[in-house]
Amino acid sequence: MDKFTPSDRYKKGLEIMQHQLGKETADKHIAHVNSISAIFGQVNVEFPFGTLYARNVLDSKTRELITIGALTVLGCALPELNLHVKGALSCGATREEILEVITQMISYCGFPAATNALFKVQETFDEIDGKNGAK
Amino acid sequence: MDKFTPSDRYKKGLEIMQHQLGKETADKHIAHVNSISAIFGQVNVEFPFGTLYARNVLDSKTRELITIGALTVLGCALPELNLHVKGALSCGATREEILEVITQMISYCGFPAATNALFKVQETFDEIDGKNGAK
Amino acid sequence: MDKFTPSDRYKKGLEIMQHQLGKETADKHIAHVNSISAIFGQVNVEFPFGTLYARNVLDSKTRELITIGALTVLGCALPELNLHVKGALSCGATREEILEVITQMISYCGFPAATNALFKVQETFDEIDGKNGAK
Amino acid sequence: MDKFTPSDRYKKGLEIMQHQLGKETADKHIAHVNSISAIFGQVNVEFPFGTLYARNVLDSKTRELITIGALTVLGCALPELNLHVKGALSCGATREEILEVITQMISYCGFPAATNALFKVQETFDEIDGKNGAK
Amino acid sequence: MDKFTPSDRYKKGLEIMQHQLGKETADKHIAHVNSISAIFGQVNVEFPFGTLYARNVLDSKTRELITIGALTVLGCALPELNLHVKGALSCGATREEILEVITQMISYCGFPAATNALFKVQETFDEIDGKNGAK
Amino acid sequence: MDKFTPSDRYKKGLEIMQHQLGKETADKHIAHVNSISAIFGQVNVEFPFGTLYARNVLDSKTRELITIGALTVLGCALPELNLHVKGALSCGATREEILEVITQMISYCGFPAATNALFKVQETFDEIDGKNGAK
Repeated sequence: MDKFTPSDRYKKGLEIMQHQLGKETADKHIAHVNSISAIFGQVNVEFPFGTLYARNVLDSKTRELITIGALTVLGCALPELNLHVKGALSCGATREEILEVITQMISYCGFPAATNALFKVQETFDEIDGKNGAK
Repeated sequence: MDKFTPSDRYKKGLEIMQHQLGKETADKHIAHVNSISAIFGQVNVEFPFGTLYARNVLDSKTRELITIGALTVLGCALPELNLHVKGALSCGATREEILEVITQMISYCGFPAATNALFKVQETFDEIDGKNGAK
Repeated sequence: MDKFTPSDRYKKGLEIMQHQLGKETADKHIAHVNSISAIFGQVNVEFPFGTLYARNVLDSKTRELITIGALTVLGCALPELNLHVKGALSCGATREEILEVITQMISYCGFPAATNALFKVQETFDEIDGKNGAK
Repeated sequence: MDKFTPSDRYKKGLEIMQHQLGKETADKHIAHVNSISAIFGQVNVEFPFGTLYARNVLDSKTRELITIGALTVLGCALPELNLHVKGALSCGATREEILEVITQMISYCGFPAATNALFKVQETFDEIDGKNGAK
Repeated sequence: MDKFTPSDRYKKGLEIMQHQLGKETADKHIAHVNSISAIFGQVNVEFPFGTLYARNVLDSKTRELITIGALTVLGCALPELNLHVKGALSCGATREEILEVITQMISYCGFPAATNALFKVQETFDEIDGKNGAK
Repeated sequence: MDKFTPSDRYKKGLEIMQHQLGKETADKHIAHVNSISAIFGQVNVEFPFGTLYARNVLDSKTRELITIGALTVLGCALPELNLHVKGALSCGATREEILEVITQMISYCGFPAATNALFKVQETFDEIDGKNGAK
């Protein structure tokens, strides 16, 4: 893996990522990415978090709810939904609000993608609650 | 076209749709849909608006911003983005907030879908402003 | 979870869903959905089944084959494909017809989505046959 | 453009394509494709039509209805939807059945993709009817 | 629009973007984007071009061919395909190679998305050749 | 399963598929497909490999890198990505080049699809290296 000296934008991005997703979730995710590709990890931190989420036009909770809607309609983004459910809770959203976003998305992506998101969200709630059977 | 007696849910849904998208935008859209298929128009009003948007778990502005994010990442939903940009403005969102949602979506759908949404949003702003060349 | 008094449309939808997917498959799925979100379960029953599948313009077997084609090209709908393979068989389709739909879809979604659907369909056949290794 | 001697499968495929979509629609489409890329045109005829639609497991009308469902959920396939609406009518489907398939698809792809398909289908009906304003 | 002082990464990114897409195509595109949203334009230049295309692991022609494949399968990226067809030619790819990539993509996205890309590529060739009717 | 006498195109396609993906990977995959549907297996070999990859307009390594980009942006094609990572290595690509393609794709499909591809590629590298925990 190539050497990497973190830029100021990376440092700022990591702080925002830790605030947005929760420190443990953010650190674990970015360590996994960095272990495979340093450039992927660099842009992951510098660009969405160090540049976009850094702007104060939208508050962090609203950003997370919008992201949860987007990840739902994408259909193939269940692992990322897990991260941003934790992020939304960490930014002050309630479980009810998260489920409401998923339900609203039925209108825009249909039942299959929304149902898969619904089940993933419950799985994430169970993971947080330490329930058996969560993975 | 089959006869259609509006249910209570349809009537309530139409009111919410008019509030959510603005009366002129909602009426024009649903008239277009109904002229082709009465059942399509019925579920369009009864289900997202009469059932989902009718719930008060999320405020109407937040719902519109989430929808704009979802329509952006879908990639193929530019005509609907036009409706919901008008809806977001009608629910109190600013142009800056709408553009911020589109920009945040780059992280989740990449530049092509986000760029197409950006151009459509500007086209909608121009349409609202009555600028020449808007279509 | 919020209280929920089933509407007439819900009751009718549940009957149609049980006919369309088979009673066991329908009941198990909707119970899972309802345990997470009552409103999601409500619209899942009332809208596709209580409103759309309730119409007699297309017969139930044709509806299931069309749905299998749609779930194949979506790419991210493998759990729902499992439900509707059972539904198609329950509505009188043969295994050969189901595999033929999947194969036709190669033309519209390419090999990756069609191949994933092919493997899921076989897994569902194995589940029905009680074969070891099915999941 | 490279020379191309049609294989037996191409000849058979062209006949099936002409039957499936209607001769005029098929000939016009494949001439357009061939004028750009002979290999693209070759596989377009030999593979879906000369190989898959050639099989008699499903009747041609059912195949067209399934294809219309698939093109609807794809979201980006409106020009192809135009071809297959003509194809479905040519294979004996009614306009009501075509609109019913589009409406059923709301459940699997949401309103944006289904609405765009609905408008395209009406545009195709208008084109067939020789109405002004159709394009 | 907010004030914007270009970073070193932006300056470097703009140079690479101009090399990659051709100066006229790059300048026109980024001016359009910047006229709507300064932050969108900033990340568009700094991130794909100033950070990713700046790396020398893959040569610029190979990067363009890969991008053309990706834009084809996305289905909703025809305006961006126009830009990158010009980019691929500008980086030394032939028209035959570009058409070959589109044709290969049939296997991964099916005919509808590949056909739409094929027609867009020809339209772009016609635009370059100054043919009437190109748009 | 229906009897199947391999055509010349099938025989040629199988050779190319074995060269492109590596013999073991190709044989195992096509045997799995053929055990479910002979017609699916037939077109899988005859069409992409016997017809498209058989053309010498692009070299086999470039074809594999383009395919890896396409499978990444599709989002739902992780099992196929596993096959083509092996294919790319078999055609002379380096691990660094494969990771670079995935990283470039962030620009076109966003982080969720690219991240899932990144993790799948590492999983495939681990599988090749015989590491514990790979699946």
